[in-house]
Amino acid sequence: MNVTMILLPEMVALDLVGPHEVLSRVPGWQVRLVAASRAPVRADRGMTILPDCTRDEVTATDLLVIPGGAGADVAMLDPEWIAFVRAQVLQARYVFGICTGAFLLGAAGLLKGRRAGAHWQARDLLAQFGAIPVADRVVVDGQFYTSGGVTSGIDAALQVVADLAGVERARMIQLALEYDPAPPFPGGTPATSPQPIVDAVLEAGKERRQSREAQVARAARLL
Amino acid sequence: MNVTMILLPEMVALDLVGPHEVLSRVPGWQVRLVAASRAPVRADRGMTILPDCTRDEVTATDLLVIPGGAGADVAMLDPEWIAFVRAQVLQARYVFGICTGAFLLGAAGLLKGRRAGAHWQARDLLAQFGAIPVADRVVVDGQFYTSGGVTSGIDAALQVVADLAGVERARMIQLALEYDPAPPFPGGTPATSPQPIVDAVLEAGKERRQSREAQVARAARLL
Repeated sequence: MNVTMILLPEMVALDLVGPHEVLSRVPGWQVRLVAASRAPVRADRGMTILPDCTRDEVTATDLLVIPGGAGADVAMLDPEWIAFVRAQVLQARYVFGICTGAFLLGAAGLLKGRRAGAHWQARDLLAQFGAIPVADRVVVDGQFYTSGGVTSGIDAALQVVADLAGVERARMIQLALEYDPAPPFPGGTPATSPQPIVDAVLEAGKERRQSREAQVARAARLL
Repeated sequence: MNVTMILLPEMVALDLVGPHEVLSRVPGWQVRLVAASRAPVRADRGMTILPDCTRDEVTATDLLVIPGGAGADVAMLDPEWIAFVRAQVLQARYVFGICTGAFLLGAAGLLKGRRAGAHWQARDLLAQFGAIPVADRVVVDGQFYTSGGVTSGIDAALQVVADLAGVERARMIQLALEYDPAPPFPGGTPATSPQPIVDAVLEAGKERRQSREAQVARAARLL
């Protein structure tokens, strides 16, 4: 099983590393990080990660994985990333978009009529690519796995492993990662967070939301 | 608030990146990754991360963060890491060990009589450093925060932020990361996993456990 994970500048590092920690623990799965060049890739909060290869070095992909964050919004409008994603999905058996990584799939025209998840602050915009936004942490539609925001990538990665390598392997990895999560307070969704917290997060993300709306509209027109 | 996170070869990448994603989102907190040299640091599953600085470039630390994995076992026996951790803890206001990162604190003689957490497969060994092992995902003893295995670092990081920057900020970050976790199946602890899964994980980790036992015994003698 060849797993190709896309590295994007300004991505959310945990979008990538949460699922990587799960997927890379399946015996026999080879995980490679692909970037536009061999240069280190800086995530939005400064975590800087080295790619394993460039796009033209990826020869075989069984599972394509795409993280989200501002980087996915930029990649949506990058013809080279769009062409790469289209070509990879044609040959890959499975696709896994985390957080707003689904937007890159949408911009490549791959989510038309499909159920898909994304971060709660962006999810509705998936409809502009003809997708059916779903407010779940793990969304499966045929060969397409997508997740809600950031940390839901860990839940979705366990589902991917359960489906493709067996539920026993997934549960072994869950135990090895001691993944019996217990946030110290309720929250994590708008429905479970106090309204002032929701308002503060929306306010802090207002500019990102505005630029994302413009980027999605442009990508949808190009499609 | 200066946050210094230690980068160790063969660490568990998610031990570092989960808490980094939380801590780096607090306004005004400067997070730096310190390594033995400026060379890229390869985690145990291939994720390769660039450090921001070397040990002698760290001038001020308010919060010291130590990830776990095989890297921490090696660092336990490295006089340079032990000296660095001792010096940093003397000046830091808070210390945060994730997974088996607590062993580096133990080997530095900093956990005597303290309650501390670690990965469930290693936790009992903390007693050899005079610590009191606690089977919680988040353990707080004075200025010392420690966590259970890998993913519990996310829970513990939210507690650190709640205590040091306010619970509102922690809940904003929790919402921004959509951290309302829902593993697709129960598990994540020996108590919640079927016995064959527990046995398989213990069997797969047998060599690591044996070498860790030897490393802890050596580090405890050196102390």
